[in-house]
Amino acid sequence: MTKEKVALIGSGNWGSAIAKIVGGNVLQSSEFDQEVRMWVFEELINGQKLTEIINTEHENVKYLPGIKLPESIVAVPDLLECVKDATILIFVVPHQFLKSICKSLLGNIRPDAKAISLIKGLDASANGLKLFSQVISEALNIEVSVLSGANIANEVAEEYFCETTIGSRIKEDGEAYYKIFNTPYFRVTVVDDVAGVEICGALKNIVAVGAGIIDGLKLGENTKAAIMRIGLMEMKQFACTFWSGVREETFYESCGVADLITTCAGGRNRKVAEAYVVTGKSFDELEREMLNGQKLQGTLAAQEVHQYLRAKNKTDEFPLFTRIYKVVYENAAPSTIVEGY
Amino acid sequence: MTKEKVALIGSGNWGSAIAKIVGGNVLQSSEFDQEVRMWVFEELINGQKLTEIINTEHENVKYLPGIKLPESIVAVPDLLECVKDATILIFVVPHQFLKSICKSLLGNIRPDAKAISLIKGLDASANGLKLFSQVISEALNIEVSVLSGANIANEVAEEYFCETTIGSRIKEDGEAYYKIFNTPYFRVTVVDDVAGVEICGALKNIVAVGAGIIDGLKLGENTKAAIMRIGLMEMKQFACTFWSGVREETFYESCGVADLITTCAGGRNRKVAEAYVVTGKSFDELEREMLNGQKLQGTLAAQEVHQYLRAKNKTDEFPLFTRIYKVVYENAAPSTIVEGY
Repeated sequence: MTKEKVALIGSGNWGSAIAKIVGGNVLQSSEFDQEVRMWVFEELINGQKLTEIINTEHENVKYLPGIKLPESIVAVPDLLECVKDATILIFVVPHQFLKSICKSLLGNIRPDAKAISLIKGLDASANGLKLFSQVISEALNIEVSVLSGANIANEVAEEYFCETTIGSRIKEDGEAYYKIFNTPYFRVTVVDDVAGVEICGALKNIVAVGAGIIDGLKLGENTKAAIMRIGLMEMKQFACTFWSGVREETFYESCGVADLITTCAGGRNRKVAEAYVVTGKSFDELEREMLNGQKLQGTLAAQEVHQYLRAKNKTDEFPLFTRIYKVVYENAAPSTIVEGY
Repeated sequence: MTKEKVALIGSGNWGSAIAKIVGGNVLQSSEFDQEVRMWVFEELINGQKLTEIINTEHENVKYLPGIKLPESIVAVPDLLECVKDATILIFVVPHQFLKSICKSLLGNIRPDAKAISLIKGLDASANGLKLFSQVISEALNIEVSVLSGANIANEVAEEYFCETTIGSRIKEDGEAYYKIFNTPYFRVTVVDDVAGVEICGALKNIVAVGAGIIDGLKLGENTKAAIMRIGLMEMKQFACTFWSGVREETFYESCGVADLITTCAGGRNRKVAEAYVVTGKSFDELEREMLNGQKLQGTLAAQEVHQYLRAKNKTDEFPLFTRIYKVVYENAAPSTIVEGY
């Protein structure tokens, strides 16, 4: 029996926190190759290569400073060297790099490899919306599972107790991922609903924008909880309407209700939306001031989802998503998000 | 066709907020008698009777100051005068008074009257646990529905948007209650699962104690969301295990996930539990200092539920409820609530 060999494609804040878990777990079991290669986009830190720092100090000093990584984690700057011989590919990269990464990987991975995507968001194009697990699966012709949950990277890295959800169609794959990711402080639940798990992670940020608007309006806890609940129901309805095999119970898992709670409690989407209401500045301006020019995921997702719903003639069935879109992009008054239900 | 005549049994903070809604709604429809009597436990406020103040100034200056009540609301100090001729009884009293109130009402209400309970909690006795809707129904031999949701009284009184859930077995009753309670800012959803709705309101405070412990431990948003999610699942499991007809979807309603979010965000149960961890003082001491000697509902509910589960030999199936009980009553370390899942 060949051992499973894990490769980590990505090494940012979340990728490094996951590296700590995965690198530790492979060392616990003889089923796994004891080396996990982690692809690091090479950069110089005070004149030293980041891969060298990670491989000597066992710490990603740039993206997860202060956290030691297991010695099983080996940083490599070359993508194809990273995935060589790997049977399990963990994708944890910003979504804008995904397609070019897949192009490079095509023909250069084991044909029996399987993948798990930790990427948040939806792929919007003229053809509609696609899950990133679908994008990977179609590009590489491999089976792709997903992982999503209430998992702020730094809190996971500090080993604060939390849960996560893995969506996997194939029972044996789910069992392998459970072994790779589960720890006493990072509790994995495996479900067979890939689309449901992934859509939760993609749509929660829209709801967080709504929660931030409520915070900005100072409407209190009842209203915020109502908006979060309605948002959870629209996430569920969106998934059930446009993907098959979605299960209602998935939204009770960590990827659903728990991640929504975390995202609406803190998080940049909530915070910038609150500032939008309080200051009257534009989202563009606030992104420059508060996020150093990075774009919010929630407002972008609100737009992508709205365009999709409009094309399907279904905006009326998603009143909260539609109201949030109109506040962000059509200058509707913030208070309209609680009107007309 | 006789008109429905509504009586409000109770006039505290929540009772008065509900009086504003119900008193307004009956004036909108000829189906209802235009007078709603509200039972007020008589007391003197600066030498003047509270009922007189309410009936002249249309404000419950003691329990909901600053909010005007509709003129349809008539405060009466006599319980039997309050319910005379009423076809709909709204129970919104502290649960410790319920049984003696029911005793007084027996034989003194219309035999065709129906009731709706807004009382939170469970009735614990040597015979086990009972819903307060059951207590009322058995005492008076009438059909009893329930209302519960993410409804902080002062926010409802200020007309901040929120939702609520009514559980009613009989379709026509649910329709009548919808007309009495629904407004554009207080959105009612009617479900047929009475026990599910009521159990949410009874058990959420246990989870809030757990959330407060996490806040005290400063474990961050991931952990708090995980505990809230596990708590919601145990609430669901508790209801489904011990009552029939409970539906999983009920826990997605305002009475479930939304009320839990509100209760774990603010609220006295969360706050005192946080102080327990931070200060090391006993709950008794903190109740004296922080609540003027009033007892917490969450710690009491944790005890009642634990005794019930122990009698049923099912504590192992409810690990979070059991851990919270042990922290509060058996001096277990607060950090044990996130261990051993």
